[in-house]
Amino acid sequence: VRIAVIGVGLIGGSVALAARERLGATVLGYDPDLAALGLAQRRGVIDVAAISLEEALAEAEAAFVAAPVGLLADLVARVLEAAPPDCVVTDVGSTKQPLTTLAADERFVGGHPLAGAETAGVIHARADLFEGATWYLTPTANTEGILYERLHRLISGLGAKPLAIEADAHDAMMAAVSHLPHVLANVLVGQAAAVLASQGERLPATGPSFRDATRVAGANSSIWTDIYLANADALITQIDAVIQALAQVRADLSAADGPALTAWNEGAAVDRRSLLEAQLAGGELIELRVPVPNRPGVVAQIALELSRAGVNIADLALYPAADMSQGVVVLWITGAELAERAEQRLAGMDLGVYRP
Amino acid sequence: VRIAVIGVGLIGGSVALAARERLGATVLGYDPDLAALGLAQRRGVIDVAAISLEEALAEAEAAFVAAPVGLLADLVARVLEAAPPDCVVTDVGSTKQPLTTLAADERFVGGHPLAGAETAGVIHARADLFEGATWYLTPTANTEGILYERLHRLISGLGAKPLAIEADAHDAMMAAVSHLPHVLANVLVGQAAAVLASQGERLPATGPSFRDATRVAGANSSIWTDIYLANADALITQIDAVIQALAQVRADLSAADGPALTAWNEGAAVDRRSLLEAQLAGGELIELRVPVPNRPGVVAQIALELSRAGVNIADLALYPAADMSQGVVVLWITGAELAERAEQRLAGMDLGVYRP
Repeated sequence: VRIAVIGVGLIGGSVALAARERLGATVLGYDPDLAALGLAQRRGVIDVAAISLEEALAEAEAAFVAAPVGLLADLVARVLEAAPPDCVVTDVGSTKQPLTTLAADERFVGGHPLAGAETAGVIHARADLFEGATWYLTPTANTEGILYERLHRLISGLGAKPLAIEADAHDAMMAAVSHLPHVLANVLVGQAAAVLASQGERLPATGPSFRDATRVAGANSSIWTDIYLANADALITQIDAVIQALAQVRADLSAADGPALTAWNEGAAVDRRSLLEAQLAGGELIELRVPVPNRPGVVAQIALELSRAGVNIADLALYPAADMSQGVVVLWITGAELAERAEQRLAGMDLGVYRP
Repeated sequence: VRIAVIGVGLIGGSVALAARERLGATVLGYDPDLAALGLAQRRGVIDVAAISLEEALAEAEAAFVAAPVGLLADLVARVLEAAPPDCVVTDVGSTKQPLTTLAADERFVGGHPLAGAETAGVIHARADLFEGATWYLTPTANTEGILYERLHRLISGLGAKPLAIEADAHDAMMAAVSHLPHVLANVLVGQAAAVLASQGERLPATGPSFRDATRVAGANSSIWTDIYLANADALITQIDAVIQALAQVRADLSAADGPALTAWNEGAAVDRRSLLEAQLAGGELIELRVPVPNRPGVVAQIALELSRAGVNIADLALYPAADMSQGVVVLWITGAELAERAEQRLAGMDLGVYRP
């Protein structure tokens, strides 16, 4: 398989390394930063350092665009112009809303691997960076099924777990579990520092729980300003919800309402447990086969419907009939309970499903 | 030395163990929970299980009250009634405002060791629980100097670092570095769970930074509801400041004001660094001697003034003249720079200071 990697930093470089080492892919890299591009080639991260976007993409079957969030929309548009008609194009940006206008192109599938925030640069690229990591994909009804299948398999091949999700749901989720925690960490250190300033030169003794809560405060501005701006709408929604929740806590404190504070705190304990348990799913792989009409978007619809039901597709394959009138989608689901849930959801979509 | 420990849970039990093992103290314990009291005696945590508050306190030189925050004010008042006239009485509660009315008694000094939040019960008591931990003390102008000195030395003897601070400054600091992070962790898990609920049964893949930020969410309600209520005023002040800070971030996001967001984020990076560096002070111990008039409150004033200047008193001793007309306060300060700063501050208080 021939892969173009546009942007050979930590993420692009790791995609390239993993694709070469784990999938035997031929990887053409391109980066406007020629020093980074040269380094990637000398270190064996890529097979070929292309001198242009066009050269990198000429015969690519898949293209990964790994650029800063603020540059992605323009760059992906240029990649789609230069990419062959049967090349799947994806990106690795942490917000997907800025790319929704590109989703009219059946070759484009937004992507976001949850990996690699703590370092940067091709020098830190590793073939195992994505091992076991969730890798969100945002297919739409326009997405070409065969191209989606190829991307899904490539990403599994890199060691990650692909998970389909709508772009806006992805952004709302990232706002809640990543961007908002960064905002609140910034606010927390700011207020601790303000208390410090009001107390002369005395420094508050912050314990491990404060350090845990503020570990991400003041994260790299060259990355995070772009992320905040790219996901401003979803983040504003979350900020408004925080303000509302804090107003309620404030009211309960003012009223010295112990039972209300206890109920709120117990609710948080339940929420925390459910979020933790969500990380621990497991079980044996069960294969499901789903005959489908060969119409655009059906593979994406299946992926989205199962994801919505909490069913993670461990692997996926698409077998089109010779005349392309229909095909069979083969799904591998982890665990008996989730496999049964998947069967119910597929039946609810008026799709037949059987086990081999 | 003879010590009364009122409440033999994790903290009280650890005070007792450390006092016995490290200071050779005789420890009388009392707890209305007779099972806990019996266990403390069988495990050798205390020397004597007293059958009443009065018996525990009869000849005590120091009394540590280690009860839940909500019960402290009443209990400390009862302890002060029962304690001998030359017994220093302290507590270990994480908010100090509820006890300010008791500070009229020259024997009472509020206290708060930063240790031991993660477990409970005498079964987990350890002699080294306070090793290296900051232990806040809240003396006032009423505090008897000899009793404050005794408490300071006892706490150093337990392995902790005593640090004097005004009660209201302590509570503002704890609101900022402990209580507010708990509130925001609760809010964060609540919103992540709400996003989850809005997405069918799909679960957000929370990464390590989310887990770090929410580790304390839903902490033990039987402890935390009391803490929130006891420190409601300072916590409300912090919550109002969060709401104001979030409103500013929201405005910057709405206006897509990248430079403002970058400046805010860079400010958070500076704040975080200064808070971390505050944990890393060190150096050689320097002895300072301060002749003082024998008037109430002077030792507390010195401790507070130096603390306000960022000077940690590693150790402290008070040598009264035979006729009690004056005395010498001996201070050990860590590091040349802080010792010089201490000398300047003491001079500013119109106190003479010399090195032996």
